[in-house]
Amino acid sequence: MNRLTELFKIKYPIIQGGMIWCSGWRLASAVSNNGGLGLLGSGSMYPDVLRYHIKKCKESTNNPFGVNIPLLYPNVKDHINIIIEEKVKIVFTSAGNPINYTQYLKDHGITVVHVVANQKFALKCIDAGVDAIVAEGFEAGGHNGIDEITTMCLIPQIRSIIDIPLIAAGGIGSGGAILAAMCLGADGVQIGSLFAASKESSAHENFKNKIVDLTDTDTQLTLKEITPVRLIKNEFYDLIQNAYKSNASKEELTNLLSKGRSKRGMFEGDLKNGELEIGQISASIKDVISVKEIMNNLWNDFNLKKRQLISL
Amino acid sequence: MNRLTELFKIKYPIIQGGMIWCSGWRLASAVSNNGGLGLLGSGSMYPDVLRYHIKKCKESTNNPFGVNIPLLYPNVKDHINIIIEEKVKIVFTSAGNPINYTQYLKDHGITVVHVVANQKFALKCIDAGVDAIVAEGFEAGGHNGIDEITTMCLIPQIRSIIDIPLIAAGGIGSGGAILAAMCLGADGVQIGSLFAASKESSAHENFKNKIVDLTDTDTQLTLKEITPVRLIKNEFYDLIQNAYKSNASKEELTNLLSKGRSKRGMFEGDLKNGELEIGQISASIKDVISVKEIMNNLWNDFNLKKRQLISL
Repeated sequence: MNRLTELFKIKYPIIQGGMIWCSGWRLASAVSNNGGLGLLGSGSMYPDVLRYHIKKCKESTNNPFGVNIPLLYPNVKDHINIIIEEKVKIVFTSAGNPINYTQYLKDHGITVVHVVANQKFALKCIDAGVDAIVAEGFEAGGHNGIDEITTMCLIPQIRSIIDIPLIAAGGIGSGGAILAAMCLGADGVQIGSLFAASKESSAHENFKNKIVDLTDTDTQLTLKEITPVRLIKNEFYDLIQNAYKSNASKEELTNLLSKGRSKRGMFEGDLKNGELEIGQISASIKDVISVKEIMNNLWNDFNLKKRQLISL
Repeated sequence: MNRLTELFKIKYPIIQGGMIWCSGWRLASAVSNNGGLGLLGSGSMYPDVLRYHIKKCKESTNNPFGVNIPLLYPNVKDHINIIIEEKVKIVFTSAGNPINYTQYLKDHGITVVHVVANQKFALKCIDAGVDAIVAEGFEAGGHNGIDEITTMCLIPQIRSIIDIPLIAAGGIGSGGAILAAMCLGADGVQIGSLFAASKESSAHENFKNKIVDLTDTDTQLTLKEITPVRLIKNEFYDLIQNAYKSNASKEELTNLLSKGRSKRGMFEGDLKNGELEIGQISASIKDVISVKEIMNNLWNDFNLKKRQLISL
């Protein structure tokens, strides 16, 4: 279809975000088997767990898949060694400086993509020699940039300064939104929330059922002083807001966040005390469906909207 | 072209936002003369000034134009009476409840559009009987909703619950973005920042020159406790942030804002001590050009992007 699908050797320009507690081998292989690019989310995996998921993913699909590595997590080097040993061919890095690992990964024949949230980091990606860039807007779930730039503004602004393949992330929930991202200058999209709520997601059923019940005002970007994160406004979110009101220190806020909150919420299903990371587009998700259905819906809607535009 | 251009009897589905200190008769009539819908921004006008601008606008264009009325300003009733006396045919209301004035305006033969930032207020608009809705995302300049919903998410979410014409606002800075908004479900767009920096804008030259120098991280939404507003991070913005750090009361914050700050900044050109309202897309604006050039650029880019999509 275009240079992005050629780069990854995939049918549709659709990447499934490598999300903590959601993106295991079942989800990634299902996306790759249905024409997109599946990514394992290594951020919530111990090294041995990552190796297991890579092996299972290789058994489950003959199509390309990749691994997302948040560079702020402690096991980065172990993860990278496993990825090289297991001959994974695509890595998406995020939450860090692309200069640190891009060349090392490329020296091992790996295609490298880095996630950015402003123009400055897009230029760092070019300097680091990445193969493509994900530009992720303020509306995205989970960890996010501090500058609050939305997908609608970020994509054309990044496009205006880089020539390599560009993947839009944040707020992509339909085929119409994929087409919109392309109108803004993207070559394809990375989708998180829709896949977090899919049947193949490794998230807890409670979390998936919560996602499909959300309204348009139910998520918020918070904890900007530590590491900005978009999450559902539940009791845990209230705890954070109360900590702000009582002028909690950065250390106190970090402690609040770090007690296995994301595992508790997304993997164990504790909807009150857990951290529930999801994007603003979650309000458009109405059912927990399979990856196959999601991909079909996206592509049918993409083609429908394209035909409608042509008739304008 | 579509039901929105039919509703307003305009050539292009492009509305120029009725911005305080920017949208006088020169700007509104230029937009209307170039195929869009120009709006006077009554929020910064005394009643007599509004009447003068309406009269001048009528002299300067034979095409339809309208007036934006922020319902939170004190002169609302005077403004509405003048609009009726002067036989203005289109009114955009914002920053308030659409139920208050919609029927009264419609009884006088006026087409009424209301600006919303979430689904709940879109449904209130339907109940109030408006003719069209502007859905304005978090990236927009000036006054904004408290829910921080971005254009990418807001448009499909509003579209999914209403059938009347829908106008996307926030982050629209190119023909590609107009096409993107349509992919998301909008019938057209409202554009602010591009026109704020146009030659015909009544804003001070200092402000226009500042806009074209902005980078992607130079605006911020602040003052959420009083009335959320997106502005340039200048010395006045620092004052607000320092007030937050010293736990200023709502009253102190309101006092900070209310000392004619927006006039001082946008109309008188005090870039340090004035309030400078502009959208995130301002980073894409590189020159102060005429409305005619802006409209030509938008429509040429719209058609270019449409041709590119068709070839996908």
